[in-house]
Amino acid sequence: MLYNSFAAIDTFIFDVDGVMTDSALLVQENGDLLRTMNVRDGFALKLAVTLGYNIIVITGGNSPGVKIRLEKLGIDRVYLKTFKKLEIFEDLVGSKEIDPLRTAYMGDDLIDLSVLHRVGLSAAPADAVAEVLAMVNYISPFRGGQGCVRDLIEKVLKIQERWPDYTQLDSPGV
Amino acid sequence: MLYNSFAAIDTFIFDVDGVMTDSALLVQENGDLLRTMNVRDGFALKLAVTLGYNIIVITGGNSPGVKIRLEKLGIDRVYLKTFKKLEIFEDLVGSKEIDPLRTAYMGDDLIDLSVLHRVGLSAAPADAVAEVLAMVNYISPFRGGQGCVRDLIEKVLKIQERWPDYTQLDSPGV
Amino acid sequence: MLYNSFAAIDTFIFDVDGVMTDSALLVQENGDLLRTMNVRDGFALKLAVTLGYNIIVITGGNSPGVKIRLEKLGIDRVYLKTFKKLEIFEDLVGSKEIDPLRTAYMGDDLIDLSVLHRVGLSAAPADAVAEVLAMVNYISPFRGGQGCVRDLIEKVLKIQERWPDYTQLDSPGV
Amino acid sequence: MLYNSFAAIDTFIFDVDGVMTDSALLVQENGDLLRTMNVRDGFALKLAVTLGYNIIVITGGNSPGVKIRLEKLGIDRVYLKTFKKLEIFEDLVGSKEIDPLRTAYMGDDLIDLSVLHRVGLSAAPADAVAEVLAMVNYISPFRGGQGCVRDLIEKVLKIQERWPDYTQLDSPGV
Repeated sequence: MLYNSFAAIDTFIFDVDGVMTDSALLVQENGDLLRTMNVRDGFALKLAVTLGYNIIVITGGNSPGVKIRLEKLGIDRVYLKTFKKLEIFEDLVGSKEIDPLRTAYMGDDLIDLSVLHRVGLSAAPADAVAEVLAMVNYISPFRGGQGCVRDLIEKVLKIQERWPDYTQLDSPGV
Repeated sequence: MLYNSFAAIDTFIFDVDGVMTDSALLVQENGDLLRTMNVRDGFALKLAVTLGYNIIVITGGNSPGVKIRLEKLGIDRVYLKTFKKLEIFEDLVGSKEIDPLRTAYMGDDLIDLSVLHRVGLSAAPADAVAEVLAMVNYISPFRGGQGCVRDLIEKVLKIQERWPDYTQLDSPGV
Repeated sequence: MLYNSFAAIDTFIFDVDGVMTDSALLVQENGDLLRTMNVRDGFALKLAVTLGYNIIVITGGNSPGVKIRLEKLGIDRVYLKTFKKLEIFEDLVGSKEIDPLRTAYMGDDLIDLSVLHRVGLSAAPADAVAEVLAMVNYISPFRGGQGCVRDLIEKVLKIQERWPDYTQLDSPGV
Repeated sequence: MLYNSFAAIDTFIFDVDGVMTDSALLVQENGDLLRTMNVRDGFALKLAVTLGYNIIVITGGNSPGVKIRLEKLGIDRVYLKTFKKLEIFEDLVGSKEIDPLRTAYMGDDLIDLSVLHRVGLSAAPADAVAEVLAMVNYISPFRGGQGCVRDLIEKVLKIQERWPDYTQLDSPGV
C-alpha cells in the first residue's frame, strides 16, 4: 500500500537533471554549464538532513557547483558522472548502507528506470518522460526544478509526523 | 477591514527567494548562486523609497548581488542569512522603528508564517506554499519574481493616493 | 486608420526591459545584471537596419552587454540610463531626425506612456502593464523577450512589402 | 509516406537557436551570450552518435560554448556563423557525405526554409514560426530547448527499432 511505502522511508535518493533542475543547462562561452536549482527544495533537503534521513544524490552529469550547493545543505553523498546508477545502488544495498524497501528514489528519465524498479517508493516529477510516469508509485504535481523534491520529502515527513509546525519554529535555513 | 489595512501602511517588509525571485537559484560551477529579480518590482521599490516608505528586506539566503541591487534602488535595510525572521521583526518593533499594524509583510514559505501572523497586512505571491496562501490577508495575482512586489506596493500607494500619474511625470529610474 | 500607421513607419524606437527582455534581471554575486534577449528579435532588427530603417533604443536601465549586442546587430543609437524618455524623444523630433507620425514606439511600462502618446504607431508586448495595454494602437500577441520586437517589425515590413521571401534568400545573420 | 521518411533516416541536421535552445540569449555585461540547452536532448544526441548516425549542426549564431558542449556529446560537425545554410547543405550533398532523402533537418525560423525544402524529413519544434510550421513533414509536440531534438531522434530510432530498452541497459551518459 502506498501509505505504507511513505511511512517506511528513511533514505531518499535523487537524480539531479530534470528532478533538482528543470533539465536546462545554461551554456557559458567557455563551455561551463550552469544549472537552476530551487530554494524550496533546498529548504526540505536541509530539514531532512537535520532530522537524520539519509540523502543520496546520483547523477550522470558533472556539476561541481551542484555538489558545492548540496554540501552546504549538509549532503555529502553526491555521486557525479555516474552512468551506471544501478551499480552504485546495489553497492549501497550490498554494504547495508540502505534498505531498498525503506528507500525513496525520484528520477525523471530512462536511465532512472532500473533503480526505480528496485525501491520501496519510486517517484517522479510531473514532467518526467512517459516511460517513467507509467511505472512510478508516486507522481509529484510539481515539475523538475519547481519543487518536486520538496513535495516528496514533505509528504514522507508529514505521514511520519516529523514535519515541523513552522508557525512555532524557525527555519533550518536554506 | 482590508481597505483599512492598506490605507495604514508606512512600512514594507519583503522576503527575497520566492517573492523578489521565482525561487530559482542558478548554480555556477564555482558554487556561486545567481538569482532572477524583476525590473517592474525595482521600479515600484525605488518609487516607494523616494516617497518615504520604510522598505526592509529579510532573507535566509546569502546573496551579496541582491544586496547590491537593492542598495542601488535606495534600500539599505537588507538582512541576509537570517533564519530567525521573527526575532529581527520583534527587535524592529521593540525599538519603535516599525509599527506592526502599519507594516505590510510579503512572504511565500513556511519560515515566513510567524511574521505574517504579526503584521497589519500579510501578503503572498500567487505561488506561495499552501499554508501561507491559507492565512494571508492579500494574495497577489502575480507570482514570485514576476511582479508581486510591484503589485503590493502599487495597491497600497493607489489606495493612499500616492501613486503618480505617469502620463505627466518621468520615472524615478530603475 | 491602423493600416496607414503601419504603412508610414520609417523609424522604430524600442524600450529594453519588458520589451526586448522578459523584465527579468539575473543578479550575479558581484551585482552585475544579466538580461535575456531573443534571437528572433535580433533577426528582425538586423534586417530592418539592413533595409535602412532608423532603429533607436531608449532604456532607463544600464546594460553595457545589451549595448554591445545591439551594436553587433547594427544599432548604434542606444540611450542607456535614460529616465526622461520624452526629453530624448522631443530632441530627436526637434532636430528633425525623426518624424513622430512615421515612428513606431514599443514600450511596456508606465514610463513609456508619455512617448507612446506622441507617436504615429504605439505598440506594446502582450504582457505590458494595464495602463499601457489600454492606450496603445497595437498589442503584439508575443510577450516581452519572446518575439514582440520581431512581430512589430515583421508586420510593418510586410504591410510595406519589404519583408523578404526567405525561401529564395539567405539570412542577414543574427 | 511519413513512416517511410522516418525509416530511411541516417543523418540528422539541427539548427541551434530555437531548436536546441528556446531562442533566448542571456546577455552578460561584457557582451558574452549564454544559451540554454536541454539535458534530455543531449542524452538522445549522444545515443545517436554512439549508434553511428551522422549528426550535423548548422547555426547562424556564434557560440563557442555550444560547440564545446556538442563536442563532449561526440558531435564534431558544428558549423557556426553560417548564414548560407543551403550552401553548406549542397556541399555536403555534392561530396556525397549525406543523402538528402535520408536526412532529417529540424529548424524553427525563416532561414531554415530553403534547407527544409530539400530533405527527406523536415521537422520543427512546436513553437517554430508560422511559415515553417506550415511546410514541415513533422511538428514535434515539444518546444525549442524543451526536448524537440530528443523527440525527433527518439521517433526515428523507435521506428527503426534501434531505441534501447533502458530497463535493461545503462545510459550512454549525458
